Amino acid sequence: MTGLFTGLSAFPLTPMTEQRIDEAAFTGLVARLHQSDVDSIGALGSTGSYAYLTTAERRRVAELAVQAADGTPVIIGIGALRTVEVLRHAENAQNAGASAVLLPPMSYQPLTDDEVHQLYADVTAELSVPLCVYDNPGTTHFSFSDELHGRIAALPNVASIKIPPTPADPAAARERVDRLRRLIPDTVAIGVSGDAAAAGGLLAGADLWYSVLAGVWPEPCLALARAAKRGDADEARRLSDELAAVWTLFARYGSLRVVAAIAEREGLVSAPNLPRPLLGLTGADLARVNEVLR
Amino acid sequence: MTGLFTGLSAFPLTPMTEQRIDEAAFTGLVARLHQSDVDSIGALGSTGSYAYLTTAERRRVAELAVQAADGTPVIIGIGALRTVEVLRHAENAQNAGASAVLLPPMSYQPLTDDEVHQLYADVTAELSVPLCVYDNPGTTHFSFSDELHGRIAALPNVASIKIPPTPADPAAARERVDRLRRLIPDTVAIGVSGDAAAAGGLLAGADLWYSVLAGVWPEPCLALARAAKRGDADEARRLSDELAAVWTLFARYGSLRVVAAIAEREGLVSAPNLPRPLLGLTGADLARVNEVLR
Repeated sequence: MTGLFTGLSAFPLTPMTEQRIDEAAFTGLVARLHQSDVDSIGALGSTGSYAYLTTAERRRVAELAVQAADGTPVIIGIGALRTVEVLRHAENAQNAGASAVLLPPMSYQPLTDDEVHQLYADVTAELSVPLCVYDNPGTTHFSFSDELHGRIAALPNVASIKIPPTPADPAAARERVDRLRRLIPDTVAIGVSGDAAAAGGLLAGADLWYSVLAGVWPEPCLALARAAKRGDADEARRLSDELAAVWTLFARYGSLRVVAAIAEREGLVSAPNLPRPLLGLTGADLARVNEVLR
Repeated sequence: MTGLFTGLSAFPLTPMTEQRIDEAAFTGLVARLHQSDVDSIGALGSTGSYAYLTTAERRRVAELAVQAADGTPVIIGIGALRTVEVLRHAENAQNAGASAVLLPPMSYQPLTDDEVHQLYADVTAELSVPLCVYDNPGTTHFSFSDELHGRIAALPNVASIKIPPTPADPAAARERVDRLRRLIPDTVAIGVSGDAAAAGGLLAGADLWYSVLAGVWPEPCLALARAAKRGDADEARRLSDELAAVWTLFARYGSLRVVAAIAEREGLVSAPNLPRPLLGLTGADLARVNEVLR
């Protein structure tokens, strides 16, 4: 298994106005992650609003990310509704110096299993870096079966799967990770997402954590990931419980709107910084978030 | 109520290869709809694969549609994940000579009601043609409440709502149309979609039918729409029942893949003509469709 897909992968925001990317703020977020010693940086993930940006904007963000990461491996999101666009993003990401790419099966018309398999076949055939399969039914509206994961994981260059939150029950979480593991090659790393499930997923055997919160708060996420990876279940769960109020906000407002509010509060980005129609939290919602964060 | 939003609105495919739009085939499909005397043509709807095309491709398709429609009113889909892109598509559609625009609340991150209302406020403020609100949770993954429809329908330039299939039960269909009607201005036309529900929706009081099948088979759809609009319920239902095998195929394969197969069979388009990752029907699936169509 490649050492790239291990530990903590932190996903920064891509702050923007309606007119342009805030390049200085984005570069600052990435440089901060490099300095905090995360294992990898996932730029242009869902938290990085890849789906809302033009091809030219995405190429530029990929270049800035690799520069600011200063040697920390960068994984670049290449999802798009159309395969030819995905291939364009993949080429631009590779030319920018990405260590890997992250591909969700974005959908508008509902996709069949065969269509999704063919998408990954078309894209992996053109790649010279490893690919992570991004399984996030909440945004892509495509649900993978473990069997389909097995078929896709057998394609060349597939090196990781980013799975949705594992079940809260530890035995059920282990069963879920074990079942997937039996269907994919040993070389493919399983990464958990859904930050509230990270401790449980890592303790159940996931190789890494693809983290939204780590994009703005890398230190507590690193402590959690390292405790879980050394098998200290009590400490990992304690550190996750300390963040329980944040997980509650994520569930209520969506993790993107909450980490945007955190980044604003810490002076890392200006407000507004999300692409319309998405609106940052304001008024009573923002007051509630700020109260929790205090 | 504007006369534009009445009767039958036919939605043509946008046939394409991986490299380019098949302009000759698209122009042929639109000219055929003009000749068949449909009340309006809905280009770049879901059936027209708007979501998969670049801004430049969409501008070109809008121009071709208005030219080939030769006076038949053209409604152009302007949906996009980001508001600034929607505004660009709206301007291009208007410059191309669109009679109206069609706007779905496409989503990647789940949208709140306030975000969707703000999207329509931002866009309608810039329009000089009427807008149809496109309510299609199966592709946009946003569900409108009737109350939200009421708030949006009060915005300037909103002239129609394209609603999802009405219930099969006639009383329930009428109740659904009546409830929405009470919450929107008299000037806003209700259009039914989901072709299998068209007869029921029109008989329940919908003003028009936004039709997928009419994009390739305008004549039987026109006969159905005219029977329903003159209140001949038996004839409208009989004509819909004659198409029952098609509605079954739509439910099984998705209406887009089926009308693409019909257009191929009739020599109107080449195969493949859908944007990957979407795949046209082949093998046993295509044989099944062709058997039904015979």
